[in-house]
Amino acid sequence: VNEPLLAALREVVGPAHVLTEPDVRAGYEVDWTGRWRGSAEAVVRPGNVAEVAAVLGASAAAGVTVVPQGGNTGLVGGGVPRADAVSQIVLSLVRLDERGRVDGGAAQVSAGAGVTLTQLQAHAGAAGLMFAVDLTARQSATVGGMVATNAGGLHVLRYGSMRAQVVGIEAVLADGSVLSRMGGLVKDNSGYDLAGLLCGSEGTLAVVTGARLRLWPRPTHRVTALLGLADLPGALSVLSRLRSLDTLEAVEVMFDDGIELVCAHAQLAAPFSQPHPCVLVVECAGLDDPTNDLAGVLSGCPEVLDTAVASDSGGRQRLWSWREAHTEAVNALGIPHKLDVSLPAQRMAEFEGEVRALVTSVALGSRLVLWGHLGDGNLHVNVVGPPPDDESVDEAVLRLVADLGGSISAEHGIGVAKRRWLSLTRSSADVAVMTAVKRAFDPTGMLNPGVLLPAGR
Amino acid sequence: VNEPLLAALREVVGPAHVLTEPDVRAGYEVDWTGRWRGSAEAVVRPGNVAEVAAVLGASAAAGVTVVPQGGNTGLVGGGVPRADAVSQIVLSLVRLDERGRVDGGAAQVSAGAGVTLTQLQAHAGAAGLMFAVDLTARQSATVGGMVATNAGGLHVLRYGSMRAQVVGIEAVLADGSVLSRMGGLVKDNSGYDLAGLLCGSEGTLAVVTGARLRLWPRPTHRVTALLGLADLPGALSVLSRLRSLDTLEAVEVMFDDGIELVCAHAQLAAPFSQPHPCVLVVECAGLDDPTNDLAGVLSGCPEVLDTAVASDSGGRQRLWSWREAHTEAVNALGIPHKLDVSLPAQRMAEFEGEVRALVTSVALGSRLVLWGHLGDGNLHVNVVGPPPDDESVDEAVLRLVADLGGSISAEHGIGVAKRRWLSLTRSSADVAVMTAVKRAFDPTGMLNPGVLLPAGR
Repeated sequence: VNEPLLAALREVVGPAHVLTEPDVRAGYEVDWTGRWRGSAEAVVRPGNVAEVAAVLGASAAAGVTVVPQGGNTGLVGGGVPRADAVSQIVLSLVRLDERGRVDGGAAQVSAGAGVTLTQLQAHAGAAGLMFAVDLTARQSATVGGMVATNAGGLHVLRYGSMRAQVVGIEAVLADGSVLSRMGGLVKDNSGYDLAGLLCGSEGTLAVVTGARLRLWPRPTHRVTALLGLADLPGALSVLSRLRSLDTLEAVEVMFDDGIELVCAHAQLAAPFSQPHPCVLVVECAGLDDPTNDLAGVLSGCPEVLDTAVASDSGGRQRLWSWREAHTEAVNALGIPHKLDVSLPAQRMAEFEGEVRALVTSVALGSRLVLWGHLGDGNLHVNVVGPPPDDESVDEAVLRLVADLGGSISAEHGIGVAKRRWLSLTRSSADVAVMTAVKRAFDPTGMLNPGVLLPAGR
Repeated sequence: VNEPLLAALREVVGPAHVLTEPDVRAGYEVDWTGRWRGSAEAVVRPGNVAEVAAVLGASAAAGVTVVPQGGNTGLVGGGVPRADAVSQIVLSLVRLDERGRVDGGAAQVSAGAGVTLTQLQAHAGAAGLMFAVDLTARQSATVGGMVATNAGGLHVLRYGSMRAQVVGIEAVLADGSVLSRMGGLVKDNSGYDLAGLLCGSEGTLAVVTGARLRLWPRPTHRVTALLGLADLPGALSVLSRLRSLDTLEAVEVMFDDGIELVCAHAQLAAPFSQPHPCVLVVECAGLDDPTNDLAGVLSGCPEVLDTAVASDSGGRQRLWSWREAHTEAVNALGIPHKLDVSLPAQRMAEFEGEVRALVTSVALGSRLVLWGHLGDGNLHVNVVGPPPDDESVDEAVLRLVADLGGSISAEHGIGVAKRRWLSLTRSSADVAVMTAVKRAFDPTGMLNPGVLLPAGR
């Protein structure tokens, strides 16, 4: 234990916010899937930007590395201590939970890194506007973590990912200096777009402490449809016709085996009187009721074998329940191998067929559950069965993705989990430049080492 | 003259594409406003990516710096040789003019750096889609230059700037290695967003050779309105009500003195039977006719004193003519001091009043012409009168902008013209990081030196 560092940290944030007791640290030291864990000298919880800077300074002086952490809902191990690191602290940003006044004219708001997505959505909603990114972990996921991982979620199709919402950022560099550009100018070509670069940099370049975020008009009408189909090619064909609707917010895909699992785990009834191999959740929203437009498109889709529609809150929530329960149902089976890939639209059906055969052959007796954001070409590939340290199935699937021109990480990021496969999807020139950029921001490598870039970088 | 370098370059691109005759070079050595010029050893016009890489390699070996150039329509001197540099070449990308097949399903297309905006718009249009960025210099401006400067233009309000259109990029680094990520995956969190960073980097980090670009559904109905108003606060109030229209594509602002100048220069009639101090050009477009919705909003705007509306192509073009002729009319008065600033919405009217008083006091007898993209908080400030090298008026205006929380460059970039004022709008921490990023990409400083970053960096 590095007592001088702990004393310095207590000086900065106050003794109550330097957590050293193993049972208190525990919740910060393991990710929520249970797959990734490590041990930290302490969990430090600064209350403002100046304290973040001072914590980074003290850690650098002590030669201790820093793992920034938001709501700890990440899926690639980037926000918990490294298993193999000797001396590290967790820098929890949850106390930076300030929400600024919503600027209705500009449709913007400032939020601290620790504000949860649920809080942000409520705050924007109270001002008659909407924060557009939404994801299942909304009660825990924080602004800082969502910026650092360029979070995607359910509405990327219409509103873009987190990067598209960021009009300003505040972040602390490894040397304690503060980047702050929170004026909310939507048009600003004065130099490099550092804010965009920090989005998705997974805590390796700077610690995000706050963001200026774009808000959207809040749709007053919303309709959800659950569609039963025979197969994925049919679903893709429906998707291409749905794209003509400018009210389209989400097109999610599930498969029969996943739905069966979810029904058993969450004690839900089957969505339709008879099972369908492939099921879509479609949502449209607008200032006018989009129900008729949606019905019009669907009436021209012979692929749709079964339909359930709801526009009231309770009914819509019910139609989403099978989709939303997937993550938890899979976790209940054991620690899953979680892959999150994107594919060019024209290779997606090919991928679905091949990945089922591949997983069966590589990991005999394992269970594959697929779902995802079809509208973004994004599938979540979950395999339960192989022990967590046996990554042969991960490797086989990611190689298939790369062969089909896809990305090995659509929205979860690279983290600890995928770094050995980064070169499947990024060229050596890409990796060399990223490594040089990392050094430009963090010359001593104190920020989140072991994440994103390959070992030895 | 560096004969060994010229010989090497001729070897790479062929003798016909190494321009050394002064009169042939001339068009590449001065910007189109006439304000920025320098002398190059040669203008080199490679025909493909491999040739670009080889040119960079030969130049680096000879210790000669490289100025990348697209359509040479930039306004901050970043694309022409530096006046004070000893040994430099112009790398013209105009021959990289390949257009890929439009992928209608993904709504994407690949284009070489040398494709002009007009060519790209026609290419997308022929496939029933639209490339959304539009600007007056469309016949010369190229994809490479527009990416490198993160071009904005007339439709940022609805579709975003160039960065929002880029789903993939191909670029050559100073060391000749090629970054290529043209697969068009819309969701990809595998490492740093290098493509977004290159957008707006003004040729200082890499030479952009091509891009994978997002296309949009082509609106079938379009309506343009010219509105006469008493003042800018009135215009801003109209703007805030127009924002409720999801068909809104452009809200441009002009003032009476600019319109008078334009009428004289371009021999246009006055837009209205009586002059109005402030005039807006508003355009809406959609798959349904937006005319009634627009009329509905305008009928609730008592600030609008005069209205002209057109939805046919000829009529619309006429309504745009005053706005489009501004740049040329100002250039005809002499070499203008061109400033391009953005301001927070709530400070814009204050800025307009103060800048008029300021210019009168700093540059007695000069002429100020203001216009811009009101919907983006972006004003173009043009001052004719002071000699090109007397930058006191530029400095005074930019300081005012900074004091009001604005940006000294909304869309033109920093280039040569604004680099001495970068620190007005970017903090020392920002500049330090940008400098480190520049070194990460281009350690020997061979790419576009003297642009964007302050001297000595």
